[in-house]
Amino acid sequence: MSTSTLTSLPTRQQFASDNLAGICPEALQSILDANGSGHQPAYGDDAWTARSTDMLRDLFQTDCDVYYVFNGTAANSLALASLCQSYHSVICAPMAHIETDECGGPEFFSNGSKLLVAEGDDEASRLGKLTPDAVEYMVNRRSDIHYPKPKVVSITQSTEVGTVYSVEEVRAIAAIAKRRHLKLHMDGARFANAVASLDVHPSEITWRAGVDVLCFGGTKNGLPVGEAVVFFDRDLSVDFAWRVKQAGQLASKMRFISAPWVGMLEHDTWLRNARHANAMAQRLHAAIHHLPGVRVLYPTQANAVFAQLPAAVITRLHAAGWKFYEFIAGGGCRLMCAWDTLPETVDAFASDLANACAVAA
Amino acid sequence: MSTSTLTSLPTRQQFASDNLAGICPEALQSILDANGSGHQPAYGDDAWTARSTDMLRDLFQTDCDVYYVFNGTAANSLALASLCQSYHSVICAPMAHIETDECGGPEFFSNGSKLLVAEGDDEASRLGKLTPDAVEYMVNRRSDIHYPKPKVVSITQSTEVGTVYSVEEVRAIAAIAKRRHLKLHMDGARFANAVASLDVHPSEITWRAGVDVLCFGGTKNGLPVGEAVVFFDRDLSVDFAWRVKQAGQLASKMRFISAPWVGMLEHDTWLRNARHANAMAQRLHAAIHHLPGVRVLYPTQANAVFAQLPAAVITRLHAAGWKFYEFIAGGGCRLMCAWDTLPETVDAFASDLANACAVAA
Amino acid sequence: MSTSTLTSLPTRQQFASDNLAGICPEALQSILDANGSGHQPAYGDDAWTARSTDMLRDLFQTDCDVYYVFNGTAANSLALASLCQSYHSVICAPMAHIETDECGGPEFFSNGSKLLVAEGDDEASRLGKLTPDAVEYMVNRRSDIHYPKPKVVSITQSTEVGTVYSVEEVRAIAAIAKRRHLKLHMDGARFANAVASLDVHPSEITWRAGVDVLCFGGTKNGLPVGEAVVFFDRDLSVDFAWRVKQAGQLASKMRFISAPWVGMLEHDTWLRNARHANAMAQRLHAAIHHLPGVRVLYPTQANAVFAQLPAAVITRLHAAGWKFYEFIAGGGCRLMCAWDTLPETVDAFASDLANACAVAA
Amino acid sequence: MSTSTLTSLPTRQQFASDNLAGICPEALQSILDANGSGHQPAYGDDAWTARSTDMLRDLFQTDCDVYYVFNGTAANSLALASLCQSYHSVICAPMAHIETDECGGPEFFSNGSKLLVAEGDDEASRLGKLTPDAVEYMVNRRSDIHYPKPKVVSITQSTEVGTVYSVEEVRAIAAIAKRRHLKLHMDGARFANAVASLDVHPSEITWRAGVDVLCFGGTKNGLPVGEAVVFFDRDLSVDFAWRVKQAGQLASKMRFISAPWVGMLEHDTWLRNARHANAMAQRLHAAIHHLPGVRVLYPTQANAVFAQLPAAVITRLHAAGWKFYEFIAGGGCRLMCAWDTLPETVDAFASDLANACAVAA
Repeated sequence: MSTSTLTSLPTRQQFASDNLAGICPEALQSILDANGSGHQPAYGDDAWTARSTDMLRDLFQTDCDVYYVFNGTAANSLALASLCQSYHSVICAPMAHIETDECGGPEFFSNGSKLLVAEGDDEASRLGKLTPDAVEYMVNRRSDIHYPKPKVVSITQSTEVGTVYSVEEVRAIAAIAKRRHLKLHMDGARFANAVASLDVHPSEITWRAGVDVLCFGGTKNGLPVGEAVVFFDRDLSVDFAWRVKQAGQLASKMRFISAPWVGMLEHDTWLRNARHANAMAQRLHAAIHHLPGVRVLYPTQANAVFAQLPAAVITRLHAAGWKFYEFIAGGGCRLMCAWDTLPETVDAFASDLANACAVAA
Repeated sequence: MSTSTLTSLPTRQQFASDNLAGICPEALQSILDANGSGHQPAYGDDAWTARSTDMLRDLFQTDCDVYYVFNGTAANSLALASLCQSYHSVICAPMAHIETDECGGPEFFSNGSKLLVAEGDDEASRLGKLTPDAVEYMVNRRSDIHYPKPKVVSITQSTEVGTVYSVEEVRAIAAIAKRRHLKLHMDGARFANAVASLDVHPSEITWRAGVDVLCFGGTKNGLPVGEAVVFFDRDLSVDFAWRVKQAGQLASKMRFISAPWVGMLEHDTWLRNARHANAMAQRLHAAIHHLPGVRVLYPTQANAVFAQLPAAVITRLHAAGWKFYEFIAGGGCRLMCAWDTLPETVDAFASDLANACAVAA
Repeated sequence: MSTSTLTSLPTRQQFASDNLAGICPEALQSILDANGSGHQPAYGDDAWTARSTDMLRDLFQTDCDVYYVFNGTAANSLALASLCQSYHSVICAPMAHIETDECGGPEFFSNGSKLLVAEGDDEASRLGKLTPDAVEYMVNRRSDIHYPKPKVVSITQSTEVGTVYSVEEVRAIAAIAKRRHLKLHMDGARFANAVASLDVHPSEITWRAGVDVLCFGGTKNGLPVGEAVVFFDRDLSVDFAWRVKQAGQLASKMRFISAPWVGMLEHDTWLRNARHANAMAQRLHAAIHHLPGVRVLYPTQANAVFAQLPAAVITRLHAAGWKFYEFIAGGGCRLMCAWDTLPETVDAFASDLANACAVAA
Repeated sequence: MSTSTLTSLPTRQQFASDNLAGICPEALQSILDANGSGHQPAYGDDAWTARSTDMLRDLFQTDCDVYYVFNGTAANSLALASLCQSYHSVICAPMAHIETDECGGPEFFSNGSKLLVAEGDDEASRLGKLTPDAVEYMVNRRSDIHYPKPKVVSITQSTEVGTVYSVEEVRAIAAIAKRRHLKLHMDGARFANAVASLDVHPSEITWRAGVDVLCFGGTKNGLPVGEAVVFFDRDLSVDFAWRVKQAGQLASKMRFISAPWVGMLEHDTWLRNARHANAMAQRLHAAIHHLPGVRVLYPTQANAVFAQLPAAVITRLHAAGWKFYEFIAGGGCRLMCAWDTLPETVDAFASDLANACAVAA
């Protein structure tokens, strides 16, 4: 069987990243609406920004402090910098995006805060999650002045490997954090997918569970650009507006950053987008997990399937035009679904994968 | 005469800032087009980014190195950081935006580089421009290790007070910069307005005049968000991509940052927008410079009129709903025109101003 | 009269800086004593450090928090960094050493905090002092997020031009600082000279007057190396030990930094040294202020005489081997006395100066 | 047998750290000599600094660029900062002092450069050394802009576990560094001990082997305070004097930092001190390696013996007043010898250890 017999790519969706998707219609409409309103105050003093902020407060059912920044690197790095001095440290999991993929952004914005990678050996750790024991170990390991003092715990929800912390797991980490005087930061680049997966109120896995600050990702959920930094503990955001400005993260035409949030929050588009992406991941998982040569690596709890594929299969799929990342040496592949992934795309990919596996087997 | 007799605001344009305007149609169309292209590579590996970069190289007639960042604070700060170490300094004019309105952004990104404010007492200095003599003075003043070593000269084109450096003026500063081993940075938040005003080829006031790096402003010219950092000396941009990423300025869905540049650069929209804004400033200047009580403070060479107005007049205009900034104590007002400012708005404002002056006189 | 007729240099003391003097006998003896004690705990856990810290607490009559660092740049920069975030600012006088002679150290350690130079036009300002009005002006001038938020007031006691803030002056600045939620930092590189000059208890011009943190200079007072950072408000020094360590300011063999402080504090050597240096400045002032061509620029209140001298006189003195700095263009000279300056040296210099002036007149 | 039967501590030397020793006589004499020279130019313009620098150039037989800083944290951090931008990274071994004991100093001074810990699984790695393969692996692992770009390799000579890189090992690392465009930094806190151990010319394991910059430790070798940063590649030290000043590492009374170096370098005191400390470690090793319950963990190649001791033995020794660190959980102890460690002290400790082991066995 030749590559040409693989299903030709039916759509322009791919599985490389939810970053490859475009703007969802609701967000786009808000941009158009915001643009139709003539001159508007700059730097966040506009009506759209006030509205999106109110909506976020309503969403979380608390009077949180909200800031909009351009991307996830900035959101996480600025949030962490507001919790740390340069000689403090941040405890995170080995696969934490802040450790592996932000090019030292947290260290840069904080002027040197060290990330302490905490590895556990229990089940949760194997699923890409930080655990209370791993946090405790890192805190206990050193307390002398020759080593950066732990000040923050950072967890990613949903995780980098498509798993989701349960409410209980977040609470357990928050409990140890509180006991050891650490603040709890949540990297929520795919927060929506976690909420959709757990089917809980957003407050349940954030402030009600003990999270101090959430970086609520918008880009992967359907925005063109932009994340919201949500401080549940407002004592931590004193002067944060100055920090954002100095760090080059204050949009002058802020309405074009905030209006899309209005579009996303109205009628729960953000949640619908996440549910769809999650459902596509489930559909993909169902279609491929039993194929010969395919080994699913992590539970499919959010919008990604992680699977080990034979090298020949990977080659064949890439040759057929499918885009996805090998993120682990030895054939570990990440198949990421987005708000716009079509069932037909999933089915076409699964079919090609099945064919490729059959050939390889 | 009561405030109510002032012309009611005919449009939603204002004179507070070109930052208050929306997205111009051409840029917006590019966003829509880019969104219609399904999944696209992230982080700048998309076709729109390649195209806008090629267009910028064509525009400047040189093989420059181009990076897109989110705003002017970041563009200027990252550019300066790439030219300086923390113990270096940047020579700029007293009214330079990097000194007065970026909340210490340049110092933050460079980890401490000091801005050296160089005041001259000649005509050019009075027009908000840095002069060769002022640069020379700052370089000569100190050369010991107890003071940050000058490494960069930064000029704003057009300036913060609506004046424009002539080609000769840029060349003269570049000459002294080169002689003293300083790099030349141009803050071009309103670069388009300068090009339109001088009616020269963009290369004439940049690399052909000796500029090493230009921060080409898009936002004030009609984009929703985004500036281009253009390195004419490519030796200076080694590893700049890492710098951008670490500093939280790399857009994942880059096409939505770069596509609008395509819209602006096609058919010279950027220049037409600038010409229009400049023309509205000229129209405003012509209509008000002779009014009793009005004193124009700087030559109107770009898209702003700076005028001293009587306090009562300012109060009256604000009461009537007109927005503009008093940027100098004692009645100095900035009246900024944008790509979308309508002649009718200019005329209505001028009429209100004339009426208010008549009352005040 | 030829240069050779000038008095030949009788001693090896000079007037360039109190930094040129050596170690005073009492401090040296403590080093020798500390060295005779075999192996001692490192990093400040030794008996000498405990003792010097207790002595400083006794000296100031309060339970202050004390850290020893290597030099004044570090003392001031670390103290300011502990009071500021990167987007904050420090109000200081135009001649403040932190602004003029620390090569951007404060900006570096704080990752970007801007120094706001506050110029007043009253008598105190002309004497090199910061004034309450100047502080107030800087705070009122800007409060928007586009400019670094004032957080600290820094004063130098005694000042860079040899004047001294009275107790009332310090209190007045502290009052405005407190009212505007600013912390008060004192650069005490020559704190001892101020105490000696005012003849007050050290607490009177520090914490009792409202100072939050003092950088108590030891080097100019007779130590080989080392300054003490004294936090009167201990809430401000939380985790400061980590900051010191990270910034490369924690001595491993700490006893050799702290023991000399014991030597200085025992029997009030620090104060005797300062009184002597001040007296030498008075002697110098008395001997030269009336000479033709000599114009004393500032009141001689500490250990320096600032005087404008004719160019020919300066040349002649330098030719005769006298060392001193011209710190102002146009003949402004700084004549600095140290703990070891001999009356004979003062007299010899005054004699040479008188001769040179006579020739020049 | 009770604790009281252990040999009472015959001297005041200990085995906790070479940082606990005092100033060696030759260095102390130089301080006294320097102090006898009256006023001397500050900031390194004095004769002692010129002399020590010439002596270091002679020692290394090359025209290197030399700077004196206060301690090892600063020496390493400033050297690395001069080789790295914030978005670069430094490859080092897991036990590298810069990673484990400088409280994030390298990250702070470089404004965020990440340390990449490279673990190997071969024999050299087990001895605490970085290996060419481990470097190569780290360079190959990532080259995208989402991860800090490797720019420097840092090795510690002698290592943190008392082993020494052979000339061939340094050369092999330098070769891979050069091929991958990385600079090679040597943390030489105990450089003297390595030279003494290898019995090679200092140039053989530095610039002749490919080292670009050496931090030559003085404190552990007998100085009160101070390390020398030696740039063999002078292109890398451009403007380093400004960096040192800004970072609070420029001593005003520099002669007291540099003169002790003269004392150390004259008549090879530095090498004699190191040889003595190494010999004491050998003596200790010989006396204890065969004791029951004692397991030597690393080859004794420099001035430390690392040995696993039974918990009861450790308790007994501590109770008897012996100071040393347990640096590994489970009884791994570091027994560090200094320039002043006496044979009698070694023998007394070995005797106590033997007795304690006999009791425990």
